[in-house]
Order: sequence, then structure tokens, then C-alpha cells
Amino acid sequence: MAKPSNREKILTEGLKVVHQLGFGGASVRDIIQAAGVPQGSFTNHFESKEAFGLEILDLYFASTRETLEQTLYNDSLPPMVRLRAYIDANHGRLNREGMENGCLFGNFSGEAVDHSEPIRQRLQSIFGEIRKALTYCLTAAKDAGELGAAINPDSVAEFIISGLQGAMLLTKVQRSDVPVERFEQILFGLVLSRPDLLQPHLPPQLTTA
Amino acid sequence: MAKPSNREKILTEGLKVVHQLGFGGASVRDIIQAAGVPQGSFTNHFESKEAFGLEILDLYFASTRETLEQTLYNDSLPPMVRLRAYIDANHGRLNREGMENGCLFGNFSGEAVDHSEPIRQRLQSIFGEIRKALTYCLTAAKDAGELGAAINPDSVAEFIISGLQGAMLLTKVQRSDVPVERFEQILFGLVLSRPDLLQPHLPPQLTTA
Repeated sequence: MAKPSNREKILTEGLKVVHQLGFGGASVRDIIQAAGVPQGSFTNHFESKEAFGLEILDLYFASTRETLEQTLYNDSLPPMVRLRAYIDANHGRLNREGMENGCLFGNFSGEAVDHSEPIRQRLQSIFGEIRKALTYCLTAAKDAGELGAAINPDSVAEFIISGLQGAMLLTKVQRSDVPVERFEQILFGLVLSRPDLLQPHLPPQLTTA
Repeated sequence: MAKPSNREKILTEGLKVVHQLGFGGASVRDIIQAAGVPQGSFTNHFESKEAFGLEILDLYFASTRETLEQTLYNDSLPPMVRLRAYIDANHGRLNREGMENGCLFGNFSGEAVDHSEPIRQRLQSIFGEIRKALTYCLTAAKDAGELGAAINPDSVAEFIISGLQGAMLLTKVQRSDVPVERFEQILFGLVLSRPDLLQPHLPPQLTTA
């Protein structure tokens, strides 16, 4: 196997440093030191810190895309099992990382969006991809009768993305995964399991009596 | 009225700059320039950037506390009206700021929590205060029969905090308040309005038939 190039080292080690310290908090010096490459390497390979930021977002998204394929897009599993697996995958990552780093996309959204329009646009398209996968799975759940006919997959997909991002953010603050657990409980126990939405043809007088 | 001191100028103008650029993104130089005070003033008044960060969190929370008093703690209004008013107050702020800056607490959670334990603890206590206010209001709603008996105010309070934080984060990315709208729709339309929970004595065969 070929040894990783300086460029690859800067990307893989830099991603970890930015995930821990934040994009503003991690200096080029921090990134170079973590990668163990000479100071000049950074500017040789990246036009700017912003250009580097866009590349680590793509690198991180490559692993997210794998998760999407294995869960939300995995037609061999029942839709609601896939949705649960997707949320568990996020929850599991938080636990592995000691509830410290949160989601790179969420961190970038909090800090880097307002001073870099290219980063904002990249995040918008990344969240768009995740929303597409969630909508695909929720539509399959509706088609399979696992969700009520009144559920709007697009709206619920948007809600899941922001709910999960918020829960991961609070997990960092509280150093506890209670916020993610609460989100899961309310998502599966209340939002997606309304018996009245599963029975759209139930005569109104029976549910409102 | 007394003219604001350099210390006050650094806090009020610095808060705006940090809200726009992020805590890592805003340098002491940016803060000093926005406040229009001499370079040395910052170190005269603040031991460190972290100490300054803690003070602007308190300053921002002072205005949050007013909102909590006017909405969630306002016993002159029906509980669910107060809850709606609290969420509208957050939504309204996003609109006034052109969906750009998000919530200072959320931004700090995303970037500053992992390299400052005092900031993490301050945020934890701030979110604790907001959770207390939400729990107070949701308990009042339950007592007034506005919410189903099976609703757990504590869990739902945690869920509202993280859901709203996530929606405000996505609002920054999308430059659109659709995520906050979705959150409101699902919170009021699905999470808090289960007809089966509002009618705990409805015979089970009618809702599960």
C-alpha cells in the first residue's frame, strides 16, 4: 500500500483536529503539527483554510454516505428498522467519542457558516443529501403502511435532521446522551406512532368523542 | 445617563461581533475595533478571552431571562399560549437578524465547549434554566388539561430545547426559517396533541380497531 501523501495526512489528521477544536479554534499550525508534515505543506496543497475546510467536509461526508447506504437506503430492511439504525449510528458515534465532538456538520454550521459562503453552500447541499435519504426511507415506510397516511415525509425528514443536530449539540454541552435518547423516544413514541394517523378512515366521531 | 465605560462597550459590541463571527472567529482585535476602545482595554478588564466569553454568555442570558418571564413564567396567560409565545420569540429573533446569526448559546455549544470547561459548565447551567422554565410551563399545561396525562414535562422540555437549537442551526445553513416552522408544526401538531393521550378514557377498541 502506498504511504499516505502529505496532502492526505493533512486531511485525515486535520479533520480530527478541527472536529475537536472547531474550525476557528484549530490553527493551521495545529493541523500541520497533528499531521506531522513541514509547515510549508499546507499552503502547497491548499489555497486557503477555507479550501481545506471544504475538503474535510467532503471527507467526513464520505463516511456519512456509507452510513446512509447501510441504513436509510438499505432496501433489504423494513423502513422503520432502517430509520432506527440510522439514528442509532449517530448515537453510537457520540458514545464512542465520549460525547465530546458532536457532529462536524453541526459544528461547522454553528461557527463557520456566517463568514464563508462556500462553506454554507456545501453544508446546505450535504444536509440536502441527508434529507433526501430520510425522505426516501420515510416514503417507503408510508408505502409499507408503517407510518400514517397523514405523515409528510419531507417535513419529517427536515424535523429529524434538525432534531438530531440539536440533540447532538446538547450532548456535547451536557456530556451525556440523554438529549439524543429523549429525541429518539419522542420521535418514535410520539411523532411517528400516532394511531390516529394510521387510521385515516376511522369515523371522526370515534376519535373526537 | 452615564456614558458607557470601556468595559461595557467591549461587552455589548463584543457580544455582537462574537455572535456574527463565532467565538473562535472573532479576534480580540475585532472586538476592540468594534467597541472603539484602545487595544490595552481588553486585558485591563478581562483576564482572558475565556473570561470575556463567560461574561457575554451572561449578558445574552439576561435578555433570555426576560423572554422567559414574559412567556413561559407568565401565569396571566394560558400555558400553551405561553409556550407558543416562547417559540415565536425565538423565531422572531431569527427573522429580525436575517436568519444569519442563530442562537449564541448554540454557537458556543458547537465550537467552544470542547476547549473550555468553564464555558461548557456555564452553558449547561443556562440550558438548565431554560429547561426549568419549559418544565414549569408544560406542567401547568398538564394541570390545566391542555396536555395529555402521559406527557412527561421534563422529557418534552429537553426535547424542545434541543429541537429548537437544531432548527436554529439549520436556519443559519439554509438562510430560511423553514426548519423552525417544521419544528413548530411537529411539536404542536404531533408531539403535544395526541388525541389518545388527551382522551385517556376512550375505550381501547375504538382507537386500535
